[in-house]
Amino acid sequence: MLSETIPFLVEIDRLKQVERQTRIIGEGRRENAAEHSWHLAIFALVLGVRFKRIDVSRVIGMLLVHDIVEIDAGDVPLHASNGNPQARQAREAEAGRRIFGLLPPADGGRLLRLWKEFEAGETENARFARALDRLQPLILNLRNGGGTWLENNVTENLVVERYGGEIEPASGELWHEVRGLIAGHFHGRSQSARASDQRA
Amino acid sequence: MLSETIPFLVEIDRLKQVERQTRIIGEGRRENAAEHSWHLAIFALVLGVRFKRIDVSRVIGMLLVHDIVEIDAGDVPLHASNGNPQARQAREAEAGRRIFGLLPPADGGRLLRLWKEFEAGETENARFARALDRLQPLILNLRNGGGTWLENNVTENLVVERYGGEIEPASGELWHEVRGLIAGHFHGRSQSARASDQRA
Repeated sequence: MLSETIPFLVEIDRLKQVERQTRIIGEGRRENAAEHSWHLAIFALVLGVRFKRIDVSRVIGMLLVHDIVEIDAGDVPLHASNGNPQARQAREAEAGRRIFGLLPPADGGRLLRLWKEFEAGETENARFARALDRLQPLILNLRNGGGTWLENNVTENLVVERYGGEIEPASGELWHEVRGLIAGHFHGRSQSARASDQRA
Repeated sequence: MLSETIPFLVEIDRLKQVERQTRIIGEGRRENAAEHSWHLAIFALVLGVRFKRIDVSRVIGMLLVHDIVEIDAGDVPLHASNGNPQARQAREAEAGRRIFGLLPPADGGRLLRLWKEFEAGETENARFARALDRLQPLILNLRNGGGTWLENNVTENLVVERYGGEIEPASGELWHEVRGLIAGHFHGRSQSARASDQRA
């Protein structure tokens, strides 16, 4: 039962070498895609129960596999120029076929479906998973005093567009709270405190 | 809903700095406890469905949180001398109270129960989670030509005792297969192939 899964379980070890833009809190080094995926899964474990229609274990399944294609296709930083999105999609689809194809078909199909559901972002669970995939680096950036926003001269409007674009469709209430954190970062604590007063 | 969870979600970022003994495959660097936890969760996602009585999402929950106490208590290498197990347990219990206590009580209690279930190892789900926690570094060591076994002069008997002690109680069938891999490593491919012939 184990042997047929080993080629895949060994191959995905390489996700620990895929570097993301975001830096871990207070440290110089950038986060890798494997530890990022773990952090996201804990976000889902903690926050998921606050959303009645969310299937937490399905969301966690998606988050555990969502970056595995980056073993072949690499990470695309959120604040990089867009490149060629169609060529990238084709590379990722090929990576999904190759890597999940290392498993017996029933297992590979199951994991591939989780990844495709995440990518399509059409189900409520996938929208929630995608929101967390934005929320986690946003929290790291805030705790790093701006992080990749400073490195890339990203304005408040761009932050709202790039993170809000995935968080708001999942939950208006969650986005309202995140929007307050972004305002607090760009305008100092006083405005953040005023926003908090308004909500109270 | 988010703000009350941020202190915890930020604190656990530090698990990415907790170094384990095991090295990632083919690389010099040692694995950290966060990426290890991600890898284990995928082991559960892939292997868990092969065990009818296993609740895969509960096992994944346990594996996601099982090392968080190491933020305060550090990692204890499997092949290190045992130190003072009671003092260590007390340190880990205190770490659990502090770190899970950063969450609202309902969330903190839920995660603390997952961790305690893993630690106690008394349920079938916990035994399975503990087996995976041995299986994953064993696979990395095999792929690293011995890994921490070579570094620590660990004999075949010690490998059988230290890994088998957690894997066999979870599944005799899984352990039988793992035992064959260990024999193959210590005695070369011919014996492994003979064992495989016998099983076929």
